[in-house]
Amino acid sequence: MIVLVFGIRVRTRATSTSHGMDFTIIKKDSATGARLGRLVTAHGVVETPAFMPVGTQGSVKAMSPRDLEEIGCQLVLANTYHLYLRPGVEVIRDLGGLHRFMGWTRPILTDSGGYQVFSLGALRKITEEGVHFQSHLDGSSHLLSPEKVAQIQEDLGSDIAMVLDECIPHPASREYTRLSTERTVRWAERSLKAHTRSDQALFGIIQGGMYQDLRFECVREMIPFPFDGFAVGGLGVGEEEETLNAIGAFTAGLLPEERPRYLMGVGRPEDLILAVRRGYDLFDCVLPSRNARRGTLFSSKGKISIKRAEFSRDSRPIDESCDCYCCRHFSRAYLRHLYLAGEILAAQLHTLHNLCFYHQLMEKLRIAIREDRAGVEPTIDF
Amino acid sequence: MIVLVFGIRVRTRATSTSHGMDFTIIKKDSATGARLGRLVTAHGVVETPAFMPVGTQGSVKAMSPRDLEEIGCQLVLANTYHLYLRPGVEVIRDLGGLHRFMGWTRPILTDSGGYQVFSLGALRKITEEGVHFQSHLDGSSHLLSPEKVAQIQEDLGSDIAMVLDECIPHPASREYTRLSTERTVRWAERSLKAHTRSDQALFGIIQGGMYQDLRFECVREMIPFPFDGFAVGGLGVGEEEETLNAIGAFTAGLLPEERPRYLMGVGRPEDLILAVRRGYDLFDCVLPSRNARRGTLFSSKGKISIKRAEFSRDSRPIDESCDCYCCRHFSRAYLRHLYLAGEILAAQLHTLHNLCFYHQLMEKLRIAIREDRAGVEPTIDF
Repeated sequence: MIVLVFGIRVRTRATSTSHGMDFTIIKKDSATGARLGRLVTAHGVVETPAFMPVGTQGSVKAMSPRDLEEIGCQLVLANTYHLYLRPGVEVIRDLGGLHRFMGWTRPILTDSGGYQVFSLGALRKITEEGVHFQSHLDGSSHLLSPEKVAQIQEDLGSDIAMVLDECIPHPASREYTRLSTERTVRWAERSLKAHTRSDQALFGIIQGGMYQDLRFECVREMIPFPFDGFAVGGLGVGEEEETLNAIGAFTAGLLPEERPRYLMGVGRPEDLILAVRRGYDLFDCVLPSRNARRGTLFSSKGKISIKRAEFSRDSRPIDESCDCYCCRHFSRAYLRHLYLAGEILAAQLHTLHNLCFYHQLMEKLRIAIREDRAGVEPTIDF
Repeated sequence: MIVLVFGIRVRTRATSTSHGMDFTIIKKDSATGARLGRLVTAHGVVETPAFMPVGTQGSVKAMSPRDLEEIGCQLVLANTYHLYLRPGVEVIRDLGGLHRFMGWTRPILTDSGGYQVFSLGALRKITEEGVHFQSHLDGSSHLLSPEKVAQIQEDLGSDIAMVLDECIPHPASREYTRLSTERTVRWAERSLKAHTRSDQALFGIIQGGMYQDLRFECVREMIPFPFDGFAVGGLGVGEEEETLNAIGAFTAGLLPEERPRYLMGVGRPEDLILAVRRGYDLFDCVLPSRNARRGTLFSSKGKISIKRAEFSRDSRPIDESCDCYCCRHFSRAYLRHLYLAGEILAAQLHTLHNLCFYHQLMEKLRIAIREDRAGVEPTIDF
């Protein structure tokens, strides 16, 4: 099969992906790059564009699986690095896999650990073999290689696995970025070879830092591989907003049309709208859940900080246009009280609302694409 | 109206209570003092014996109102002292009362603050007028008098209000206990006079420390008043288990049959079974919810500490005979993982289960009374 990358004909090494995941583009927006898609996984269908709440340690913080189902969550992200260290992948495998362990019946994507290892700083060392690191929990020494990360994700039984990559810090020199990205490509090929489960999709990850030509090179190297989808990593790591948008847009434009595109770790509602217009299909970010626990709540009228005195007697819900359980039953005054009193229920209700806001935003985006208005809708007030 | 107290005829000052609460004893167990009752409040019916989860600050920690409804919670306890200090009673009153504030449509009992003030230690001073204390939040000075506490509870709009009392520390001298208990009786009379809401019941509180004769005197003084029910306070404050049981049983035997009896702050499942057999109808305790957050879980086979290594690969639910959401969906291994990882969901699921266990226990007690087997059932393995 021949695909075009910026007009350059590239021969792919396989004619199709082979992991049982099916991705169909149902509709393309005529004014933007936005696409409405349908991703069929071993645990069900995901309508894209879709947002994945982050369940780092096998739990989306303060949410039960039924809470997530209620707000329309289609898939969640869990983290290979964290689950490998605790409770250990053998435990989860022997108990029937991550879905059964978490009590979550819908699709799961597992991150490879590249981002977490990047966050470890001095505790890790990267070699061609893989990442040597010390556990943030007990200091024990570990090696995560592309093969091992693939094996762990197969044992976890996620629907979508990610290749091991290096998430390059920002700023990084051109030379370091080039060498790292080349290694990420080699790791990707090793990941593919190690991957055996036919009921699990495998996504490649595009790195290349803030250098457009290195992003281009990375894409050119990666798209011949029969990955079921491609993620764009290494963004949202401290770079300027303009750079994030420019690199994100540039890289999306290089990726093959027919496979899903996942923009990792990004971000704010306005970032998601822009990214959908660039043609991204999948997103994850801790922002809505972390903000929730810190009392920063999203609404159609903008963000609010629930601890502000102005809400102390405010009988309105967080968002009058939201129909989540939190907004149907609780006032800003009560939520402020719970937050200031340190009540766990504040984290529960706030997270439920913020994630509902994100899922409603994605639903609005899907509707806008269906109606060919993705260039102008949805609008948010910030 | 004449009532008998240990064979002594006592004239009551009113022929009936007057606050719109109705209590009917449906069935008495023939072998014990247990009674099956029906308490009709402004916000609905409570079948007794009943357990009240503690929602100190206007939230049963880690539980949403719908969680509580799901496990069969009939009424919750909220705390006058805490809500008075934060968010302030005017806020709650102006927002439509505590039910609307909390999003809880079923009955609420408000504790008077006597126990919290007792816990303040050096920060409080008791005079005939009331309790002078400094806020544990900001050190500000306050006076809670019987009248003020009655007013606060009317503003909160609870279904059952409690009189202000002094919860006497243990050990306490006979003389201190006598003087304090006499003052508690005078405060009770002042509370009654201050109480105006016809849709709110008011309960008197029996003190008297660990001295049976002072308990007797207190009951003799209190039962002439037209309280809608009587609570027994000052137990579970560090005394021996034998003393708790002896004083609890003795005092229950003094209280009028036709009014509900509330044993405050007690306790463990085995305590509740004993107390129901002594004729108590209402209970509250932080034990199930606090234990839950600390990973101690109740089951029909005994208590378990979820953090123990033996559960690391245990695929069973906490309690195989429990049908709560937690036990239907999650293994001990997963719950242990959540607990060790510090996940909020551990507190949520554990609290849901422990409170469900308590409510199921009360349901079993009600069934046992109905079937006249309360002397031998339910049994628990600890």
